[in-house]
Amino acid sequence: MARSFTTERKIRFSHCDPAGIVYFVNFFDMVSGAVEDWFGEALGWTFNDMHIRRRVGFPIVNTGCEFFKPCHLGDRLELELAIAKLGSSSIEFEVTGRVAGEEKFRARHKVAMMSLDTQPALPIPDDLRAKMLPYAKE
Amino acid sequence: MARSFTTERKIRFSHCDPAGIVYFVNFFDMVSGAVEDWFGEALGWTFNDMHIRRRVGFPIVNTGCEFFKPCHLGDRLELELAIAKLGSSSIEFEVTGRVAGEEKFRARHKVAMMSLDTQPALPIPDDLRAKMLPYAKE
Amino acid sequence: MARSFTTERKIRFSHCDPAGIVYFVNFFDMVSGAVEDWFGEALGWTFNDMHIRRRVGFPIVNTGCEFFKPCHLGDRLELELAIAKLGSSSIEFEVTGRVAGEEKFRARHKVAMMSLDTQPALPIPDDLRAKMLPYAKE
Amino acid sequence: MARSFTTERKIRFSHCDPAGIVYFVNFFDMVSGAVEDWFGEALGWTFNDMHIRRRVGFPIVNTGCEFFKPCHLGDRLELELAIAKLGSSSIEFEVTGRVAGEEKFRARHKVAMMSLDTQPALPIPDDLRAKMLPYAKE
Repeated sequence: MARSFTTERKIRFSHCDPAGIVYFVNFFDMVSGAVEDWFGEALGWTFNDMHIRRRVGFPIVNTGCEFFKPCHLGDRLELELAIAKLGSSSIEFEVTGRVAGEEKFRARHKVAMMSLDTQPALPIPDDLRAKMLPYAKE
Repeated sequence: MARSFTTERKIRFSHCDPAGIVYFVNFFDMVSGAVEDWFGEALGWTFNDMHIRRRVGFPIVNTGCEFFKPCHLGDRLELELAIAKLGSSSIEFEVTGRVAGEEKFRARHKVAMMSLDTQPALPIPDDLRAKMLPYAKE
Repeated sequence: MARSFTTERKIRFSHCDPAGIVYFVNFFDMVSGAVEDWFGEALGWTFNDMHIRRRVGFPIVNTGCEFFKPCHLGDRLELELAIAKLGSSSIEFEVTGRVAGEEKFRARHKVAMMSLDTQPALPIPDDLRAKMLPYAKE
Repeated sequence: MARSFTTERKIRFSHCDPAGIVYFVNFFDMVSGAVEDWFGEALGWTFNDMHIRRRVGFPIVNTGCEFFKPCHLGDRLELELAIAKLGSSSIEFEVTGRVAGEEKFRARHKVAMMSLDTQPALPIPDDLRAKMLPYAKE
């Protein structure tokens, strides 16, 4: 069974729109931040190290999200991340947002490993892939 | 044949990330802004009028985007919006981003009309629907 | 001696600009977030409660910041907040940002209590002021 | 008499907060964008050219803003920029925001020219300074 990674966000004033709910764009920022946290905390690959020292990145190939319920100021949002599909260069994440157990949104977020200098897709190295595998559903 | 609506954005320093390209989250903000422009300029329903006076909104049901090529500082991004599917309460937009004719991304962005006070989905009124129809592909 | 309130932020990819350092605008968002945290955690006045139930807010009167050193991806930024001047309706905060003890910026941020409905400035009520006083330098 | 540079922004849904007015942080982004527009349109130094080809930047030394009146969804904000003080490496801008002639905020925003590679402050070259001078009040 796949492991999952969770991280929490406090819904702030600045996340909310004139309707008093989170402006949807901020959810994509949180999804991307959850991926950043997972790389650093679960795999030991911080974005700083990745971009500056290793000169690789994981640009977004595609992303999409279903919004089920609005989030409000003061909510504690739990983000749960797992890998829906692990390709040779690409990772397709499923990230679910919940407040007090209620599902607020579910995103699919696909990234691919790339050299920052030469720009072609890179195969994910074996040692990094081994750390990713426990989070993969398939 | 469906009409389309176009609007332009200048890619600014603040849109770009440490890799020197537009941070993907900003594209969702631009897609949402294109929808806002279309409501105001093409339909004559400004967001201000809609939210304050009419007390209705168009929250996002789901959204997704394929990213084909990165955008860079100084690019002139053309956003082209059309309606992929017009439902009774919902509108599914297709929004394409191009720079100098090159397709950078294509988004599907679905919203639904809702009362801000009572919160159920509302059927799009006939006069507003009539203004939307020329932009609908199906 | 005045008490201070501290809160921490992780500097993320999305905070940084093409020069690889934090885009300055994000520091103002963090300063404002530190004020929000202080109201909720130190005074027990959450922004949600304040805006929704009490119908008061603390809009910004003026704000300014000196930037001493850039912040980088992966930095742990410590925000330290104190009250530089407590007026009858207004609070002028001093917020200092440090990474590993090095001062990165210092902000002055003045807000004033206001009714969200009738909009005049409101005197800060005595019980709330009593909770603020330990953080005031003068 | 000093020349001034003006640029306009449409206040969008995404600029506004749960109180229905522009979240102050977005004004700093607009001030910074006005500086970017001025460099490109008034001086012929686009940020792209500046950062990529010339390898220089203008990081912010300090910035501050007085907020007089709130801005609302749908407002057309006019930003007027002039140089309050032109130093050897630094420029202190005054940027005023108005809606229909009413002053909404006034910012002081100081930047300094810097090499992106070697990082010391650089004197503003004479040809660039000559283009700046007409905008300088002193």
